[in-house]
Amino acid sequence: MYLDLSDICQRVGLAYDGGARLSIQGVSTLGTAGPNELAFAEAGTPQPEVAASRAGAVVVALGFSTVPGQRHLPNASPRLTFVRISELFLVPEPSTGIDPRAAVETTAQIADGVSIGPCAVVGAGARIGADTRIEAGAVIGPGVQIGADCRIGPNVSILAQASIGKRCIIHAGTTIGGDGFGFVWAGDHHHKVPQLGTVVIEDDVEIGCNACVDRAAFGITRVGRGSKIDNLVQIAHNVVIGEHVILVSQAGLAGSVTLGRGTVVSGQVAVTDHVTIGPGARIGGQSGVTADVAAGAALFGTPARPLKQAFREQSALARLPGLLKTVRRQDATIEALAQRLSALEATESASDKPQT
Amino acid sequence: MYLDLSDICQRVGLAYDGGARLSIQGVSTLGTAGPNELAFAEAGTPQPEVAASRAGAVVVALGFSTVPGQRHLPNASPRLTFVRISELFLVPEPSTGIDPRAAVETTAQIADGVSIGPCAVVGAGARIGADTRIEAGAVIGPGVQIGADCRIGPNVSILAQASIGKRCIIHAGTTIGGDGFGFVWAGDHHHKVPQLGTVVIEDDVEIGCNACVDRAAFGITRVGRGSKIDNLVQIAHNVVIGEHVILVSQAGLAGSVTLGRGTVVSGQVAVTDHVTIGPGARIGGQSGVTADVAAGAALFGTPARPLKQAFREQSALARLPGLLKTVRRQDATIEALAQRLSALEATESASDKPQT
Amino acid sequence: MYLDLSDICQRVGLAYDGGARLSIQGVSTLGTAGPNELAFAEAGTPQPEVAASRAGAVVVALGFSTVPGQRHLPNASPRLTFVRISELFLVPEPSTGIDPRAAVETTAQIADGVSIGPCAVVGAGARIGADTRIEAGAVIGPGVQIGADCRIGPNVSILAQASIGKRCIIHAGTTIGGDGFGFVWAGDHHHKVPQLGTVVIEDDVEIGCNACVDRAAFGITRVGRGSKIDNLVQIAHNVVIGEHVILVSQAGLAGSVTLGRGTVVSGQVAVTDHVTIGPGARIGGQSGVTADVAAGAALFGTPARPLKQAFREQSALARLPGLLKTVRRQDATIEALAQRLSALEATESASDKPQT
Repeated sequence: MYLDLSDICQRVGLAYDGGARLSIQGVSTLGTAGPNELAFAEAGTPQPEVAASRAGAVVVALGFSTVPGQRHLPNASPRLTFVRISELFLVPEPSTGIDPRAAVETTAQIADGVSIGPCAVVGAGARIGADTRIEAGAVIGPGVQIGADCRIGPNVSILAQASIGKRCIIHAGTTIGGDGFGFVWAGDHHHKVPQLGTVVIEDDVEIGCNACVDRAAFGITRVGRGSKIDNLVQIAHNVVIGEHVILVSQAGLAGSVTLGRGTVVSGQVAVTDHVTIGPGARIGGQSGVTADVAAGAALFGTPARPLKQAFREQSALARLPGLLKTVRRQDATIEALAQRLSALEATESASDKPQT
Repeated sequence: MYLDLSDICQRVGLAYDGGARLSIQGVSTLGTAGPNELAFAEAGTPQPEVAASRAGAVVVALGFSTVPGQRHLPNASPRLTFVRISELFLVPEPSTGIDPRAAVETTAQIADGVSIGPCAVVGAGARIGADTRIEAGAVIGPGVQIGADCRIGPNVSILAQASIGKRCIIHAGTTIGGDGFGFVWAGDHHHKVPQLGTVVIEDDVEIGCNACVDRAAFGITRVGRGSKIDNLVQIAHNVVIGEHVILVSQAGLAGSVTLGRGTVVSGQVAVTDHVTIGPGARIGGQSGVTADVAAGAALFGTPARPLKQAFREQSALARLPGLLKTVRRQDATIEALAQRLSALEATESASDKPQT
Repeated sequence: MYLDLSDICQRVGLAYDGGARLSIQGVSTLGTAGPNELAFAEAGTPQPEVAASRAGAVVVALGFSTVPGQRHLPNASPRLTFVRISELFLVPEPSTGIDPRAAVETTAQIADGVSIGPCAVVGAGARIGADTRIEAGAVIGPGVQIGADCRIGPNVSILAQASIGKRCIIHAGTTIGGDGFGFVWAGDHHHKVPQLGTVVIEDDVEIGCNACVDRAAFGITRVGRGSKIDNLVQIAHNVVIGEHVILVSQAGLAGSVTLGRGTVVSGQVAVTDHVTIGPGARIGGQSGVTADVAAGAALFGTPARPLKQAFREQSALARLPGLLKTVRRQDATIEALAQRLSALEATESASDKPQT
């Protein structure tokens, strides 16, 4: 596919540079783009890296220094604009309909334009929205609802009458609606607490590969609109995730955790059950959050504490071995001073002081 | 489904309050239960929270204060009793038999009442116990044995001639019997150590979604009776897990780890290979256990140390930046004292002391 | 299967001990091997453990003390030799061809000797090399290439036109080629960055169960020849892994991380995006690597620092609560000294010193 540079500019709202006509066949990075490809540079990209690019044109931050012979397309949001240009080159996958080797129960309601791959399974009473793709080997349980324009990856399992919104992407191997981890000790065994609730995934959510979202014990485990969840993330029963939250790979939320809108949870973070994290908070990688977090706070460490405090403690810790030596030396010095002082006091009191 | 309150009380061994007849249609939380639902409160539940409930009746701890107009059913174990009431409302899934789109080898032995979902695969010589459910897309390898009354979730893989006990639940996407991670350096490459052993899962074990239990290199990787394993947990080759152990989400046990009966391992804990953890030990979240742990011990941190010590160190660490300042100030003070002392000594020795 | 001991010795290059003819039926550990089985002991294995073995013969390190009545086969690499003996007893799985219940697109190219299990799916234009096994329920996406002699486990998903080398093993439930986790904030939502690249897995790579290798945003996510990756490991987009790298269970590499040849990354380690780890570096369990690592370095902790420093800090931390007390005591002592000194100075200056 080729698109004319001026056409591209028009479609994404970029000012055309007025230069010669140029056919663009795709997008790439500064280092790999060829003369018929577009690349982008941010305000902070080093000038020599941009200058060395063979890209046919470069979307740059406003005010970026010109490079002789290189076509620049300045824009306030070069990365986002570049992403929008990339999308022009995406070839939409055509609907392939319901593969005859898929197992779709007759009571399932399948809207127009839905694709269901071979060996995928759609249970009784499930409802699948228009133009949604269900890839090979995915299992959609009885009574599950999936909105329009979703992509459900291969070998995904969606259970417990979960409800998935519109334009959601669930990547390969992920499970939604597994039982929450609830037991009560019954004197001689852990007795299972029936998990009777469900999962609601709102519109525009993306969930990576091999992640888990458990159904609620009662009620709903919820993932808010526009939130993005990476691979291998654990979301326990009755968690409530606000809108536009980011959960990076291998993070885990224990039961009944609440995340406010726009929270960013980095990789391998753990959040203790029933903790509430306020909107816009940012939790650093591998932190263990054990108490409620205020809106907008930045935390780090296990147990998680304010980022600045954690860094201060960390750099203090590096000085601790030296400090132990210093204090041992001080001890000796103080002891020596005390002895000298005692000697002096003895001299003083022993002397026949005429004035006392 | 409706059950009479007096009938419920009789079936779970609760003393009936003798009040008016009440039809109960289900259970819920204090906050969400309606007048035809049951809820429960523990000894520690705040009184106003209970009083505000619209539940038709509340199972409460013995001695819980009465609330005018609210029906209370006192019990020594309100949570467990509530769970048992919940179970009365579970609708048993009827056997659906072997779906014609499942692939069951002719040499597999399938007991009565077994359900096998579409696109599930049961290998040669596998044996499936009575009333067990194998959900869609699950793969049961050749020679695997599964006891009666189990639930094997969608897209589960059970391999290596593993043996699963009775009444086990294996949730979606979990793999049992994958090769252990064993290699020996052969001068110019990592040479694979053949993984020849198997896995034994004893009765009444529950394993969450997308977890992994590897086969032994030789012999058996074992999960003891009644143990409960959460989502995304890693259990390496030759691990031996005792009875009634709890392993919370994303915990990982390296090769040949042994966990005693009743151990509780919290989320994201890592245990180094060949470590033995004694019965009833409790390992705090995200800890890294690098040495054997005594029975009943409570550990925390990386490397894991006694919980109290870890907390003491943590709170000491918070005071370390201040301590660095204190010691710097002390240094100055000591230096000043030393100078003052030297001056005094000089004065003393310079003085023409008649008495010396 | 029985093999003669002298025959075994010849096939793996061991010097035969010249003893009586012995039929060996397999291998096992020192503790469990019977009189017709082989075991092995390393230089460090305690002598009594070896002496107690009932094994028919024991492969031992050179110079290992003899045990009367026990046959020893000395060798410079007893573990590796033992592994090679184990391999003699592996029964090769015969090709089972393409199961009629597999879904293989007609444009896929399937070489001779390939086995494809029931309910496995092979997409349009995929190419599968000779003698490769694709287990039940695996999904091989359109355009994916897999080399000869590979084993692709059940319920694996390989997507994004990924390329897998020869002799690779991908265990159950793993996903290769999922979208990278890339978003750009667009003022009111996280806008997805199209993930257009692919994954290349080189020859002789093994990947455990339920792991994830994401496709590149552009270009290639690469796993180098001979590298071994454990269960539940996360490899993000554009990661480049060198040859013979070890990644232990539940480790996670963020986007564009580079690992040099022979790096060893322990369990539950996290590596921040764009970090480069030099060849042969070793990262201790649960560490968080936040900056580039020199070749051959050994690191530990979060944030990761040189192993020795981390240990020194850790042992210093254990002494910190005591140090806080010491410094408080010093404060008191210094204060007392200062008072005594002041008293002395006062006495001195008050005295009618004839000589001043």
